[in-house]
Amino acid sequence: EEQQEFMSPRPTQSQPPATDLRETVTAPDVQAVREIVASTGFFYDHEIAVAVELAQEALDKGAEASGYHFLFMDDAGARGRAIAYACFGPIACTVGSWDLYWIAAHSDRRGKGLGRNLLRASEERIRAMGGRRVYIETSSRPLYEPTRGFYLACGYAEEARLAEFYGPGDDKIIYSRALAEG
Amino acid sequence: EEQQEFMSPRPTQSQPPATDLRETVTAPDVQAVREIVASTGFFYDHEIAVAVELAQEALDKGAEASGYHFLFMDDAGARGRAIAYACFGPIACTVGSWDLYWIAAHSDRRGKGLGRNLLRASEERIRAMGGRRVYIETSSRPLYEPTRGFYLACGYAEEARLAEFYGPGDDKIIYSRALAEG
Repeated sequence: EEQQEFMSPRPTQSQPPATDLRETVTAPDVQAVREIVASTGFFYDHEIAVAVELAQEALDKGAEASGYHFLFMDDAGARGRAIAYACFGPIACTVGSWDLYWIAAHSDRRGKGLGRNLLRASEERIRAMGGRRVYIETSSRPLYEPTRGFYLACGYAEEARLAEFYGPGDDKIIYSRALAEG
Repeated sequence: EEQQEFMSPRPTQSQPPATDLRETVTAPDVQAVREIVASTGFFYDHEIAVAVELAQEALDKGAEASGYHFLFMDDAGARGRAIAYACFGPIACTVGSWDLYWIAAHSDRRGKGLGRNLLRASEERIRAMGGRRVYIETSSRPLYEPTRGFYLACGYAEEARLAEFYGPGDDKIIYSRALAEG
């Protein structure tokens, strides 16, 4: 039922058509992931490389075997051309805890509520697969202020902070959200 | 210098001879890891499988490529026969943060200070490789009370707690320790 709800959500003004969301990673998505992540201007080259690696691994092995589940939002005018995406996966040795590894929209398309829709749709997918909680990790650097505001606005709470985790003066903040019981 | 210090530590009553510690994973170590971890009675089968996987990966690819660094403590009477071990690695996208993934002594050999010596030696290795901080994650379940006491006694501080992370009623506790500047 969750799955069905996700496949055909009630349309609202801010929500894009459900057909714009897809899970299967295609070969062009690997390059799209690189472009989307790079376009944000938020990430170091080695971080972009990690984002691309995850997409490649999901393409090669599939979501189950790789542990990396993707959700792509396509350009309304060009099916198959991703303009935003989320990547998430179950955390090993936990019962129902999932990590949201990446969520990003192309810089050309930001400020249109795509991120929020994508996050909600990702949570629905996670819940349909038995997820109870979603964790998101981010940096305390000023650059990430809008990112942190986005998570808080989407119902995530700051649950922990690890001082100087990423480097001197750069803490890790862990946000979490308990998903409503199915 | 750190390396040298580790290779020939000042002998004390409680410290085993330095020659009992070694880093290179050998084929028999994979089975030894399984036996050590299983002997503790602390871990689920799927957790034991993870411990063994890490050793296999380090054996196949080496420490650098696998990201899993091992330190084995051998039986004083049988060189090459591990009775305790630690597994640690650098955390991707951080400057100097390391995870201690596993540290365990065979149940026959517990209560002899092996764990503390192994932890100190692991920290020395991490520091020699540029590590600034060590993180250890463990469960809030009562079973792990002695484990938590061990980390606290070894200078680790509880830095964060993620409610219900592992499952209902089973929090994740994150301990950390800043290593002294080299």
